[in-house]
Amino acid sequence: MQWHVYLSGEIHTDWRQQIIDGCKAAYLPVTFTSAVTNHEASDAAGDFLGPDSGGFWRDHKSSKVNGIRTKNLIEKCDVAVVRFGDKYKQWNAAFDAGYCAALGKPYVTLHDEDIIHPLKEVDASAMAWATTPAQVVDLLKYVIEA
Amino acid sequence: MQWHVYLSGEIHTDWRQQIIDGCKAAYLPVTFTSAVTNHEASDAAGDFLGPDSGGFWRDHKSSKVNGIRTKNLIEKCDVAVVRFGDKYKQWNAAFDAGYCAALGKPYVTLHDEDIIHPLKEVDASAMAWATTPAQVVDLLKYVIEA
Amino acid sequence: MQWHVYLSGEIHTDWRQQIIDGCKAAYLPVTFTSAVTNHEASDAAGDFLGPDSGGFWRDHKSSKVNGIRTKNLIEKCDVAVVRFGDKYKQWNAAFDAGYCAALGKPYVTLHDEDIIHPLKEVDASAMAWATTPAQVVDLLKYVIEA
Amino acid sequence: MQWHVYLSGEIHTDWRQQIIDGCKAAYLPVTFTSAVTNHEASDAAGDFLGPDSGGFWRDHKSSKVNGIRTKNLIEKCDVAVVRFGDKYKQWNAAFDAGYCAALGKPYVTLHDEDIIHPLKEVDASAMAWATTPAQVVDLLKYVIEA
Amino acid sequence: MQWHVYLSGEIHTDWRQQIIDGCKAAYLPVTFTSAVTNHEASDAAGDFLGPDSGGFWRDHKSSKVNGIRTKNLIEKCDVAVVRFGDKYKQWNAAFDAGYCAALGKPYVTLHDEDIIHPLKEVDASAMAWATTPAQVVDLLKYVIEA
Amino acid sequence: MQWHVYLSGEIHTDWRQQIIDGCKAAYLPVTFTSAVTNHEASDAAGDFLGPDSGGFWRDHKSSKVNGIRTKNLIEKCDVAVVRFGDKYKQWNAAFDAGYCAALGKPYVTLHDEDIIHPLKEVDASAMAWATTPAQVVDLLKYVIEA
Amino acid sequence: MQWHVYLSGEIHTDWRQQIIDGCKAAYLPVTFTSAVTNHEASDAAGDFLGPDSGGFWRDHKSSKVNGIRTKNLIEKCDVAVVRFGDKYKQWNAAFDAGYCAALGKPYVTLHDEDIIHPLKEVDASAMAWATTPAQVVDLLKYVIEA
Amino acid sequence: MQWHVYLSGEIHTDWRQQIIDGCKAAYLPVTFTSAVTNHEASDAAGDFLGPDSGGFWRDHKSSKVNGIRTKNLIEKCDVAVVRFGDKYKQWNAAFDAGYCAALGKPYVTLHDEDIIHPLKEVDASAMAWATTPAQVVDLLKYVIEA
Repeated sequence: MQWHVYLSGEIHTDWRQQIIDGCKAAYLPVTFTSAVTNHEASDAAGDFLGPDSGGFWRDHKSSKVNGIRTKNLIEKCDVAVVRFGDKYKQWNAAFDAGYCAALGKPYVTLHDEDIIHPLKEVDASAMAWATTPAQVVDLLKYVIEA
Repeated sequence: MQWHVYLSGEIHTDWRQQIIDGCKAAYLPVTFTSAVTNHEASDAAGDFLGPDSGGFWRDHKSSKVNGIRTKNLIEKCDVAVVRFGDKYKQWNAAFDAGYCAALGKPYVTLHDEDIIHPLKEVDASAMAWATTPAQVVDLLKYVIEA
Repeated sequence: MQWHVYLSGEIHTDWRQQIIDGCKAAYLPVTFTSAVTNHEASDAAGDFLGPDSGGFWRDHKSSKVNGIRTKNLIEKCDVAVVRFGDKYKQWNAAFDAGYCAALGKPYVTLHDEDIIHPLKEVDASAMAWATTPAQVVDLLKYVIEA
Repeated sequence: MQWHVYLSGEIHTDWRQQIIDGCKAAYLPVTFTSAVTNHEASDAAGDFLGPDSGGFWRDHKSSKVNGIRTKNLIEKCDVAVVRFGDKYKQWNAAFDAGYCAALGKPYVTLHDEDIIHPLKEVDASAMAWATTPAQVVDLLKYVIEA
Repeated sequence: MQWHVYLSGEIHTDWRQQIIDGCKAAYLPVTFTSAVTNHEASDAAGDFLGPDSGGFWRDHKSSKVNGIRTKNLIEKCDVAVVRFGDKYKQWNAAFDAGYCAALGKPYVTLHDEDIIHPLKEVDASAMAWATTPAQVVDLLKYVIEA
Repeated sequence: MQWHVYLSGEIHTDWRQQIIDGCKAAYLPVTFTSAVTNHEASDAAGDFLGPDSGGFWRDHKSSKVNGIRTKNLIEKCDVAVVRFGDKYKQWNAAFDAGYCAALGKPYVTLHDEDIIHPLKEVDASAMAWATTPAQVVDLLKYVIEA
Repeated sequence: MQWHVYLSGEIHTDWRQQIIDGCKAAYLPVTFTSAVTNHEASDAAGDFLGPDSGGFWRDHKSSKVNGIRTKNLIEKCDVAVVRFGDKYKQWNAAFDAGYCAALGKPYVTLHDEDIIHPLKEVDASAMAWATTPAQVVDLLKYVIEA
Repeated sequence: MQWHVYLSGEIHTDWRQQIIDGCKAAYLPVTFTSAVTNHEASDAAGDFLGPDSGGFWRDHKSSKVNGIRTKNLIEKCDVAVVRFGDKYKQWNAAFDAGYCAALGKPYVTLHDEDIIHPLKEVDASAMAWATTPAQVVDLLKYVIEA
């Protein structure tokens, strides 16, 4: 069985690549998906569409275009990894976690110890909490191959 | 028809009370529900249960106890209002929004203009964005009585 | 058992009132709901919210506010009546019919004979086609009381 | 991942072909599906079946046969494109949009600016609004490959 | 808690009345519902609607009108009783049983021993098989009050 | 796209083979499935299991074993064909139709004109009614290839 | 809001009564439901039905009759309490927990510390673990009234 | 069609291997899945994650990691076999059975005659009860190939 893993959240460090590389090195049968992680491209996702607009509506249009992708990929994944970094609001990551929770889709959080408290509701519905990408790789290795 | 409105998010200002008062003044047939909004009580929600524990597991235990309440109230509401203030991470509010989105439960966001960009995914699935509690009251009045 | 009937579609004739009056005269245990049928109010449903905008985004904002109401009422109804008149596009009525069909919610169409052909997909998923409000009253009387 | 795109609506211009050609030129992994677009064949879909009948029942029989196809293809697609042209009632397109909305299936509308107002409810549940087939190709390219 | 019991099937004997009387005598908090059991009225349920037609389409029209009632009542019941007598095809009763089975709605069959074999698939998804209305009353008494 | 067609009902004539042959001759991309159609094998499906038993419980045990197969195949099919012959009770066929109806799974009935009336509820939820296997082949050809 | 609490599991101590009394003393708006807790009555639940039988089939018949009650009550509850004592297999309690988990119905386990290990899968999907009825009362008080 | 069979429960005898070998010998198109059956590995599934902890929380962490695997595999299987041996509590097996029951996923139990009574609720929702692995192989052979 091929496993589908959705990688949600922070886009400023290489945690996605570390997980992908670790799983490849372990020859795990995993396919990774993700939202568009190029920040500028993502913000501009709707710019080529419809009427000129700025501010709220530009964001609105782009987010809905991005939603076509993320909604499909989350609903098709077997497990999601939701990453919270030490900067920015990252409400989209918490939103994805809530979306997974309501669908009954298992997810794992990946974040440092110093944000345990503000993430307690997100962690409460998660199947695991990891602090390093290597732990996520170990978890996937165990879950898939043990 | 009685409408059930779930009030999610920020607990440091009186936005909930303003909405409740506004709807009462308008004689709207609305019942309001909410997570426990007493911060200390909420953090200690699981303290009377099971083995001693600290850190992650204290938060975990309390969040799951709180989840019995929030899960039930969100699933029973007709519309949710999700409030983001200017402080704190408020990931639980974004989590609730994602949960609503996946259930197909309509929700309205309530936040200032300066956080439009980080909330764009949360707003993209919302039915409306308001900046003041009075707007939420007007919206409920229209939706329920117009 | 109280029956909940959602009345969708055309707003320029008094078909809703005829059905309501007919059911009242027959003492049927029916509650009627509907989208906001005041055209100007419905178009302006979102005007009090968020940033200034015109054209597409004004319509967008208002339609989503209206959607909070219609989505709730359709999902709570036991049967919907979807009315198509001889004027205007009335795509919202066909949209409501498709929404009902996907939910497995029974609906009845109400329209003249000269638009049978363009409504064939809408009628194909309907439980009945009526041409007069009186027929709808008779149908409800039979379904509820026979 | 192969993407499944359902093309709904207007059958009198070559918009479907333009989208298909554009995606092929971009080597996108997309499979397109659609209702039967031959108008006469579609109207006659049920003629070989059951009792002789005319008028309403001929349309009814054919539409239900067509429904076996459209229901299956819509439920299996990842995203639908719903096209409204400048002629005819096109209630079936709005019906498909409502069907998608209730299923939580993302869809994009494709129509000119002059019918924004009558399509406001249909657009309110859409993930994007495009005015040209080329925009739809760009959107699919972004959503699938970015 | 009030229990809702749907009584499906045979209309030529007084089994419904026996169950209703038995439950009333036991003061059980039960509400009974049923399809329209007047055979002529049921066959004519759609006669006042739409185009003239005979044979297949008359039956079709009437059955769909009846379906508005039966679909609602079955989906709202807590348990169904499906009765098969010794005459007629009674395919509608078996259809109701299949409908209940797919919904996960518990049902009880009520039939004589000599039709066990042809009813084996219907009984296989039932929660119980009774041979007399009195047994059904006993079952309801136990289930509700024990 | 490969289509999955479930063939339910009568096992005493070669209607299944006619449909299979017709689709093969037309090179349709169809996979056919069915309950076990060997009557004796089906009746004995549970004989090798559990405690000795006769009468009701033998049928019960066998029907539940058969149900593992039929439940899976019905839930995986794209369309079902439900055949009623001129003999026997065939309640299992009507049960399958009800099961399909509740799942929103499209089905086609196949039966002669003289049993239209007793099958009216089954036909009312069907997408089409055919009287010959050749019509079913034509329908599948149209639905899949037109 | 009235809360519905289902009490599942062990029937040899008075834990149910302690919880009910505690909630009554606290004036909580709670309705309690439960399987039939009279052991002999429960074992004999199907004895008045159908053919004579012993061993497996007697248990089978009774358990299905009991299932009409438990299935309805579990699906209608807001939260379940699942109690494991120090004797017997109590597989029905674990079965109820799995049933709740799959439905997304919150449940709390109630058991001593010495059976933590064999209950780890049951606890992993629970929202809380309590060791005394008084803790359950405290939990309900907090969840409902805090 | 490839069948997916989930093997749940007892890990101290070779019943899994017997079923796998039997199906292989019969050339059945079956894929088998299972929870991690190495007891020590399973108990330690979460040891590499998060903060140090012992007792309840070590079990909790490991069980949730295991749940990522079991939840996915159960939801993807076509039929489950749930085995109860003569030792240990095996509440996880009963939990899996309840989970399957709520999902409408067919399952077969495999256990000796002397535990019929405590398993009566688990058996009541099962599609079959077998006492030997060879019977399960026969059942799969029949269900898949007959």
